[in-house]
Amino acid sequence: MRIVVLAGGIGGARFLRGLKQAAPEADITVIGNTGDDIHLFGLKVCPDLDTVMYTLGGGINEEQGWGRTDESFRVKEELAAYGVGPGWFGLGDRDFATHIVRTQMLAAGYPLSAVTEALCNRWNPGIRLLPMTDDRVETHVAVELDGERKAIHFQEYWVKLRASVPAEAVVPVGAEQAKPAPGVLEAIAAADVILFPPSNPVVSIGTILAVPGIREAIAEAGVPVIGLSPIVGGAPVRGMADKVLAAVGVEATAAAVAAHYGSGLLDGWLVDTVDEEAVAVVEAAGIRCRAVPLLMVDTDTAAEMAHRALELAGEVRA
Amino acid sequence: MRIVVLAGGIGGARFLRGLKQAAPEADITVIGNTGDDIHLFGLKVCPDLDTVMYTLGGGINEEQGWGRTDESFRVKEELAAYGVGPGWFGLGDRDFATHIVRTQMLAAGYPLSAVTEALCNRWNPGIRLLPMTDDRVETHVAVELDGERKAIHFQEYWVKLRASVPAEAVVPVGAEQAKPAPGVLEAIAAADVILFPPSNPVVSIGTILAVPGIREAIAEAGVPVIGLSPIVGGAPVRGMADKVLAAVGVEATAAAVAAHYGSGLLDGWLVDTVDEEAVAVVEAAGIRCRAVPLLMVDTDTAAEMAHRALELAGEVRA
Repeated sequence: MRIVVLAGGIGGARFLRGLKQAAPEADITVIGNTGDDIHLFGLKVCPDLDTVMYTLGGGINEEQGWGRTDESFRVKEELAAYGVGPGWFGLGDRDFATHIVRTQMLAAGYPLSAVTEALCNRWNPGIRLLPMTDDRVETHVAVELDGERKAIHFQEYWVKLRASVPAEAVVPVGAEQAKPAPGVLEAIAAADVILFPPSNPVVSIGTILAVPGIREAIAEAGVPVIGLSPIVGGAPVRGMADKVLAAVGVEATAAAVAAHYGSGLLDGWLVDTVDEEAVAVVEAAGIRCRAVPLLMVDTDTAAEMAHRALELAGEVRA
Repeated sequence: MRIVVLAGGIGGARFLRGLKQAAPEADITVIGNTGDDIHLFGLKVCPDLDTVMYTLGGGINEEQGWGRTDESFRVKEELAAYGVGPGWFGLGDRDFATHIVRTQMLAAGYPLSAVTEALCNRWNPGIRLLPMTDDRVETHVAVELDGERKAIHFQEYWVKLRASVPAEAVVPVGAEQAKPAPGVLEAIAAADVILFPPSNPVVSIGTILAVPGIREAIAEAGVPVIGLSPIVGGAPVRGMADKVLAAVGVEATAAAVAAHYGSGLLDGWLVDTVDEEAVAVVEAAGIRCRAVPLLMVDTDTAAEMAHRALELAGEVRA
């Protein structure tokens, strides 16, 4: 079975770990979000790709869900001693090495997809990880700060400001001109099932879908497209998805997110058991829906979620 | 008193610490060797400039003479885990930060001299540190390896091979086209005395002198030019200066190194007390010479050496 998964960071990575357990024989291609990529200290940092790579490769800091396990911060401390910031982005020493290798390869002319493959050669994540695009896309968030309306980098909004001010708009700058990375459209066309994990529908999966050609390829693939709600009981399971949902005029409910993707894209949708009442609403919109436990407390629960998603795909196919 | 010092790495840095103690009121400009600069992991590394900066700024690893005190090597370990080398160059985590800041500033368009000034703003070395040039100069060493004659980077010869094969030639690639960095010629022209510390006469001071204009400016400055022998009793005090002296056809003796600089450049030369017999030879060549203790075991002995060099400058001037 060939499975294509659109993934953001922590939620996507943890779901993927469950999926690998639920479908150990499957051939899994992950299309990773690169809209939250950022240049820091002259280095190219790809937080979502790295979170997937570290999580599936056994190098993740399990507690925080991002960054390396057993991490130290000596480089960052020294940069601060030079007065060089930003200090709000937590780059650890071990993590720095990843960005140094990536930046060096990019400077040598390799596209991000080739660099990602090279990095994965070390981590053996057990899936094929493709960036959504080799082109530069940067998600910016329009906010009002100190009485002034300005667009800031998503990481500044998310990590520095902790989404503490309303997001007035979310713009994946560069997406319109971006092309899907080599292999992305081919993987979608060859897929038996396409999954949207409980990643952020706006700044993770939404950004991937903003690359021209990807949404269309998924809609036309002719295979079940199954999503899992990142909203449980009217609030994000983790993160601050509600903050950016508001920016695109979508309510923070499991049913509203399904409607946001739409029946043109989604064939099936899983909501949490606490959102049982959403099932009828979603089905009325033409999307098959089931209520199952959606809290990923460990790999087993993530595997059970993946199992239920694949089960729903089977139902759709039948 | 305005003092200009041409400096390589460890020897130059330790001498400078002594000079600062011997002449606390002096205005000291250091022209640093950049021929041993190397690009590693996409980062610009300037070993000699950093050794001077760290030593005078209190950040040096005292025992080894280069690199940062209280250093760790986590980034390097991770790079090795990615299969990215070289492993033979000991870049520590704290040191990495310096190279990251430097590389970022260079990429932003600042010349090396401006970058060096910015880095020194943190370290307050108490001297003005100028790279010999803002242009790229790389010292290459011609060697025979596995039956093949090839030119390798000086660091590969020095650090990886530990100078274990004969150096057939030493070439400061790019020096001929290089221009002295802003301030270099002006500092030389304004100097009251010019010092050559016991740095390597070929790959440190020799490289600085290879930048067109610097040797001429020193020769024409009309002020005492005093050097200290890096060779004591027929062997380098530290390092492997004899290996590269052979490549330029110079014997590893205190007198031969003085003759290599020549009376057109040098006015005075200090040899160690064990090389007393060299004094007459050097003076016969038209260079005033004194035998004094030249082993820098601590800052006090380095200060005494600096004091004797300034004393000899006074004699020359009178």
